[in-house]
Amino acid sequence: MLTISTHKAENIIEKGTGCMDALVNTGWNVLAEDISFPAAVINQKLLVNNAQWMQTFSERAKVKLAPHGKTTMSPELFKLQIQHGCWGISLATVPQVVTAYNNGIKHIILANQLIGRRHFDIIAELLSVGDFEFYCFVDSIENAKSLGKYFSDKNIKLNILLEVGVVGGRCGWRDNDNIMQLCEVISQYQGLQVRGVSFYEGVIHGENATNEIINFVKNIKTLCQSLHSKEVFSSGEVIITGAGSAWYDLVAEHLHEPDNLFEFTPIIRPGCYLIHDTGIYQDAQQAVLTRSELAQNLALEPTGELLSSLSIWAYVYSIPEPGLVIVGMGKRDVAFDAGLPTPTLHYRPGTAKPVSADKQWQLVNIMDQHCMMTTPTDADLAPGDLISFSTSHPCLTIDKWRCIGLIDDDFIIKKQISTYF
Amino acid sequence: MLTISTHKAENIIEKGTGCMDALVNTGWNVLAEDISFPAAVINQKLLVNNAQWMQTFSERAKVKLAPHGKTTMSPELFKLQIQHGCWGISLATVPQVVTAYNNGIKHIILANQLIGRRHFDIIAELLSVGDFEFYCFVDSIENAKSLGKYFSDKNIKLNILLEVGVVGGRCGWRDNDNIMQLCEVISQYQGLQVRGVSFYEGVIHGENATNEIINFVKNIKTLCQSLHSKEVFSSGEVIITGAGSAWYDLVAEHLHEPDNLFEFTPIIRPGCYLIHDTGIYQDAQQAVLTRSELAQNLALEPTGELLSSLSIWAYVYSIPEPGLVIVGMGKRDVAFDAGLPTPTLHYRPGTAKPVSADKQWQLVNIMDQHCMMTTPTDADLAPGDLISFSTSHPCLTIDKWRCIGLIDDDFIIKKQISTYF
Repeated sequence: MLTISTHKAENIIEKGTGCMDALVNTGWNVLAEDISFPAAVINQKLLVNNAQWMQTFSERAKVKLAPHGKTTMSPELFKLQIQHGCWGISLATVPQVVTAYNNGIKHIILANQLIGRRHFDIIAELLSVGDFEFYCFVDSIENAKSLGKYFSDKNIKLNILLEVGVVGGRCGWRDNDNIMQLCEVISQYQGLQVRGVSFYEGVIHGENATNEIINFVKNIKTLCQSLHSKEVFSSGEVIITGAGSAWYDLVAEHLHEPDNLFEFTPIIRPGCYLIHDTGIYQDAQQAVLTRSELAQNLALEPTGELLSSLSIWAYVYSIPEPGLVIVGMGKRDVAFDAGLPTPTLHYRPGTAKPVSADKQWQLVNIMDQHCMMTTPTDADLAPGDLISFSTSHPCLTIDKWRCIGLIDDDFIIKKQISTYF
Repeated sequence: MLTISTHKAENIIEKGTGCMDALVNTGWNVLAEDISFPAAVINQKLLVNNAQWMQTFSERAKVKLAPHGKTTMSPELFKLQIQHGCWGISLATVPQVVTAYNNGIKHIILANQLIGRRHFDIIAELLSVGDFEFYCFVDSIENAKSLGKYFSDKNIKLNILLEVGVVGGRCGWRDNDNIMQLCEVISQYQGLQVRGVSFYEGVIHGENATNEIINFVKNIKTLCQSLHSKEVFSSGEVIITGAGSAWYDLVAEHLHEPDNLFEFTPIIRPGCYLIHDTGIYQDAQQAVLTRSELAQNLALEPTGELLSSLSIWAYVYSIPEPGLVIVGMGKRDVAFDAGLPTPTLHYRPGTAKPVSADKQWQLVNIMDQHCMMTTPTDADLAPGDLISFSTSHPCLTIDKWRCIGLIDDDFIIKKQISTYF
């Protein structure tokens, strides 16, 4: 049935054909059109820059880092993060946890409720091996009872973090004043160990977000002191964990202020920093740099700043009207929920090297497999030209790809990495 | 490293762990929580109903059917469509073509431009085998020259369809009056055979869309008569192909009106009918039923109508405030670009069977891995309950899943199918 030899099919790296060994040095040249397009590539140097940046930030901020792995769902990138010193990986679902565990990640926060019979079975089986430090969030009496019964019956200790939420937000217990209702239920189950408190401040928006987040974090600190004094926490390390990719500086700072009355381990969970973007997370990081002296100092050092490391390369398919360019990249290839991609480079196959895309070129519409770009009517573009795009919102770009090429500065693919969505 | 046995990991069917043999009779029971959630399932009976419906419609409308395979990118579903009598499969990219070809589909329309060195190589290699009937669209002189040189040098005949477009739309030659410019370039290459004309009317919107589409199709008919009289088409069968999922009835009807002056093969390319939805394509199909006597007659027969066959099942994670339900389904699991999913069934594990979801339950927000549903404050819902959702826009739901379960009416997964995005 296969008429394309395995060797040749392999370098359709991006869509539909599965992935090879991720560690192969492929040597394919993007500019020589060695691969099929559209294709997603990550600049290795920028990736490592970003890993180092957030690791250094966290160390100086005296917080541990458990980056949210749901952004990339790429075990190779999880390993890169661990090699740079991350405490562990945060994840959003049980299949994501299994993928990470099976790839050697042994410190995992399920930054979510653990719900459902099959999921209980899987986590119980992983915990029974004994090499796995696992935490999940609990925010309801119903879930506490289900987990408590299941894990107590199995005689397995499940580490739980009490999730505290925001009114009008997502998950999380709403009223700190009555959280002892939940704690008392939990205390009835020997299978449940309260190891700390968790939260996600990223659902707070609006003009007054900064102050609201600071107050939210301060209230959590107060709550934790109270829970500590009431001996809600199991003996051993107590974890307080929060922070997405937009407000991690504020969370890190205010978890340390005011002075702690008891010892705990602060863990932040940003996920988007490793890939970064030129959209919503670039904006968020600019705000971090405005707020945080620590981030400002880092930006002045050789590490510099977070940089967008991911590009989508796609062909010009057609220029059916002057100034209207149809590009072979669509909703199947790139995030479109937080602004459309930005043209960054233009390359005409056969020429020496890419040039910067004209800043007047602008994506104006996107369909499943195409997008429309407007340009000046005299733009020097032709069908068959390649354009690279930076993106906004890495989580919803990376999940479009099963394989992503890691490139050097000469656009040579040095490795392929796999994703597990 | 693997601590979950292969057997047990297999029934995380939906995310992150790859797929098993698609033809296995799994027997997993959705209601018994045998699998991980969120999960995507397709009702087999409704799937077959939809396949039959569009096949019957096409046969009565005297058009051939080459459904757009990009919607599902599932070879098992391509085979189902071929078994029901489809002429072939349409696809949007070269990797999609390779996937279909490698799974036995030998009549393929690349409903797009064929662009790029690597893609030329792949198509040339497939064509050299000799068992492959392949067509691609051409809409520019630049592309015609590139294809012409490449395929003439290789001494391979490439079947091309002249793509005619809509002003302000997507690809396609804009001015029928000067299309001979393109045809004359093509005629210089012995490697290029003009086998017909193609179009996509789905970019026409607005209040007057019906009339504009009718005129567009009529103009294409006129153009084809002219091209025929000028002997632009290669000898043999001439194809005129158009129609997405919203206007296929109008296209089918007007390709046959007025009477043909020469023989051609009309082929329509709807893709969404097989899965259908309860959103934009349900609305489009209601319009078809209003317009088309043929569709109205079919709806009165046992075949009935197209029915939404795909559901996403997800857990209630948390009800942190009365009337606010957090569900474990997000942008990673379901389309959100054409309306949010609709709750259809509610099932509390351990009870006899699902009941219809309250019509007052409504998704109001969706994030990467969660969504927010509002309900009356006294809704009988609890964490751990399962909700099934129907969707809007199958193309952007199916591409979130590598494995989809085919279920019977008792919610037993009879097979798994794989997708190749």
